[in-house]
Amino acid sequence: MQQFDAIWINANIATMTDNGLPYGSIKNAVLAIKDGVIAFVGPRSDLPEFDALATPMYDTAGQWILPGLIDCHTHLIYGGSRANEFEMRLNGASYQDIAAAGGGIKATVAATRVASHEDLFVLAKDRLNALLAQGVTTVEIKSGYGLDLATEQKILEVAAELDKHHPATIQKTFLGAHALPAEYVNDSDGYIEAVCQMLPQLQQQGLVDAVDVFCEGIGFSVLQTRKVFAVATTLGLPVKAHAEQLSNLGGSALVAEFAGLSADHVEFLDEAGVAAMAKAGTVAVLLPGAFYFLRETQLPPISLLRQYKVPMAVATDLNPGTSPLCSLPLMLNMACTLFRLTPEEALLGVTRCAAQALGLEDRGSLAVGQRADFACYSISQPAELCYQLGVSQLKQLIINGKVVNHRL
Amino acid sequence: MQQFDAIWINANIATMTDNGLPYGSIKNAVLAIKDGVIAFVGPRSDLPEFDALATPMYDTAGQWILPGLIDCHTHLIYGGSRANEFEMRLNGASYQDIAAAGGGIKATVAATRVASHEDLFVLAKDRLNALLAQGVTTVEIKSGYGLDLATEQKILEVAAELDKHHPATIQKTFLGAHALPAEYVNDSDGYIEAVCQMLPQLQQQGLVDAVDVFCEGIGFSVLQTRKVFAVATTLGLPVKAHAEQLSNLGGSALVAEFAGLSADHVEFLDEAGVAAMAKAGTVAVLLPGAFYFLRETQLPPISLLRQYKVPMAVATDLNPGTSPLCSLPLMLNMACTLFRLTPEEALLGVTRCAAQALGLEDRGSLAVGQRADFACYSISQPAELCYQLGVSQLKQLIINGKVVNHRL
Ligand SMILES: [Zn+2]
Ligand SMILES: [Zn+2]
Repeated sequence: MQQFDAIWINANIATMTDNGLPYGSIKNAVLAIKDGVIAFVGPRSDLPEFDALATPMYDTAGQWILPGLIDCHTHLIYGGSRANEFEMRLNGASYQDIAAAGGGIKATVAATRVASHEDLFVLAKDRLNALLAQGVTTVEIKSGYGLDLATEQKILEVAAELDKHHPATIQKTFLGAHALPAEYVNDSDGYIEAVCQMLPQLQQQGLVDAVDVFCEGIGFSVLQTRKVFAVATTLGLPVKAHAEQLSNLGGSALVAEFAGLSADHVEFLDEAGVAAMAKAGTVAVLLPGAFYFLRETQLPPISLLRQYKVPMAVATDLNPGTSPLCSLPLMLNMACTLFRLTPEEALLGVTRCAAQALGLEDRGSLAVGQRADFACYSISQPAELCYQLGVSQLKQLIINGKVVNHRL
Repeated sequence: MQQFDAIWINANIATMTDNGLPYGSIKNAVLAIKDGVIAFVGPRSDLPEFDALATPMYDTAGQWILPGLIDCHTHLIYGGSRANEFEMRLNGASYQDIAAAGGGIKATVAATRVASHEDLFVLAKDRLNALLAQGVTTVEIKSGYGLDLATEQKILEVAAELDKHHPATIQKTFLGAHALPAEYVNDSDGYIEAVCQMLPQLQQQGLVDAVDVFCEGIGFSVLQTRKVFAVATTLGLPVKAHAEQLSNLGGSALVAEFAGLSADHVEFLDEAGVAAMAKAGTVAVLLPGAFYFLRETQLPPISLLRQYKVPMAVATDLNPGTSPLCSLPLMLNMACTLFRLTPEEALLGVTRCAAQALGLEDRGSLAVGQRADFACYSISQPAELCYQLGVSQLKQLIINGKVVNHRL
């Protein structure tokens, strides 16, 4: 007789696997877990015999079960607020005015540098709790508001503490090459050198799961990005980039060259870049929140990405400058409304493809052996999660096999 | 010695009055209430003597207090979901395909007609609770998914029941002239006649606070709108219209001619219409959610509205077809991001101007004699409420002088 730790019955399950049906769905199905992983998923008739009296059983009464959502691109650890410059800009201030008033990323770097570990932890925890309440169980967090070793380390340490104390899984990405700090004005090569020296030190402390670079005219060049990627590769760390957001520099193809995890934003990505990503298995991470907030007009090449079968992930890009939008469901809606993804593509983008963008093979779909990270929703069909916003339909959230009853 | 029921101290108060400062703000201030209305608001030094031992006192420790938010345009009572047609459209179906599959407003009318009072109440209550949790204390609800007397009455009765049982105030708007029901195909004049006959019957039962018409090429003509407005005026009911959303028919000027409350959408409003509204004191209700969801490109004439000092309100337009977005904070962000309203204009749009759009003089700002509907937020400045989304900063909500601890 098989042993389970708990069973969910009478569920419609969007497994997000390739089972030939939309959403990999199985109607009127059962999901059973054991030791934090999925032990059975399928029609009730296939369920092996088990000890019904000793096994907690949840009757979902027709609810839908989906994998826990994965936000694979955030900058959610930061100090300060940029509401003041948001207001200045809407009152007619130019970017120069705002820079002169100490605004922009400099403001966030300054506020993050002076913030204590505890301050940052509390701020980030509130954001993480908001994501959790929306069904998000895995979150990538980038550094990049320190731009010096001590603060980059502080941010990654806070991320590690969140991973330890919060039910959600945190993936830590080193984004030292996010912007040029005041200490290196007119010496971006010097700063890239410094970033390359920070990286091994941070990795030694177990603070780095992946390495990211902001590869853009206003960020770092492809050559500089290559230098950082080379060090990462030497250390055995996977790479990714903010690429092709404002122009087509070839950052995405560079990520592909390094067999990297993902190229993110990619509004200006061309066919050669798409082809390179397809060949390398690099994920395109779409960030409709930044597109919306910056009122961009250049759409990512969705048709090409489809044609070349490049996996598309969708994420919040949660950050104080260009996407202060702490809501993955809002991104589902924006991915459909603004980028014309189908609801199935959008939901794959926050489950299976998002897991792939993080190099995580143990989650993102519901199949035997996958982590028991999933949620029950009172919805009539999965597309509901992309279509409507504001009324929560999340009824139960399970992380690592445990029902999450309260937040941190 | 003055008597108060409760006092909030150490608050920054955005009174939203014309006190010469942005947001009508008063720093380090006190707000006191008595019998459900505001009895004092101002600096602590001006607070009259009172019995400190007998008066509950809340120390907000620097939080901001703003008026309860007002959502002055919603269709939140409806049955069914339109997620399926959302998905169909994103998979390439045309509007004709969707209509042939029974989609569009017809689907919502059909689902609303068969829904019981209780079904509709439960669905609407969840939406109202979601708004309440975001600081909304007054909500306008339109009928218009019945298109026959029985169902229009059912919707308005549910609205009346919500007003009775829910802490929020509900304003009931009769929108019989929302679309042409199947029973009157090719006879829109006949249906307008029917609407004009429904109106007095519904009003007699106390179910109508205002009358709305969808004045548009795909809705009803200005002449038909005029007929409905004439009956409303005879009955002493204020009027408003969905106007100038897709074309410039002159519906807004018609509302102004009837000294109506508001013209809503107004993307295609011209200067003559703006001038007429200014003269009549008619509010322009901006609906950025529908603009976003329909991917419209024609912006409402914000500069003209400013120039003529037409009050601008902001609302969700919550409805299953064109704005399934149950979030007034999201509309604050969209009003700023998409329509370039300043945060102060956006917040006036969900407080003082929204109250004016509903003809309610007892709310929308914080001043002596106004209803004690307000909320405390842990924010550094009011613009935060427009800038960031997803992490709730609402700490306490007071409606009619009572702290709201739980939802319905
Ligand atoms: Zn980013
Ligand atoms: Zn409407």
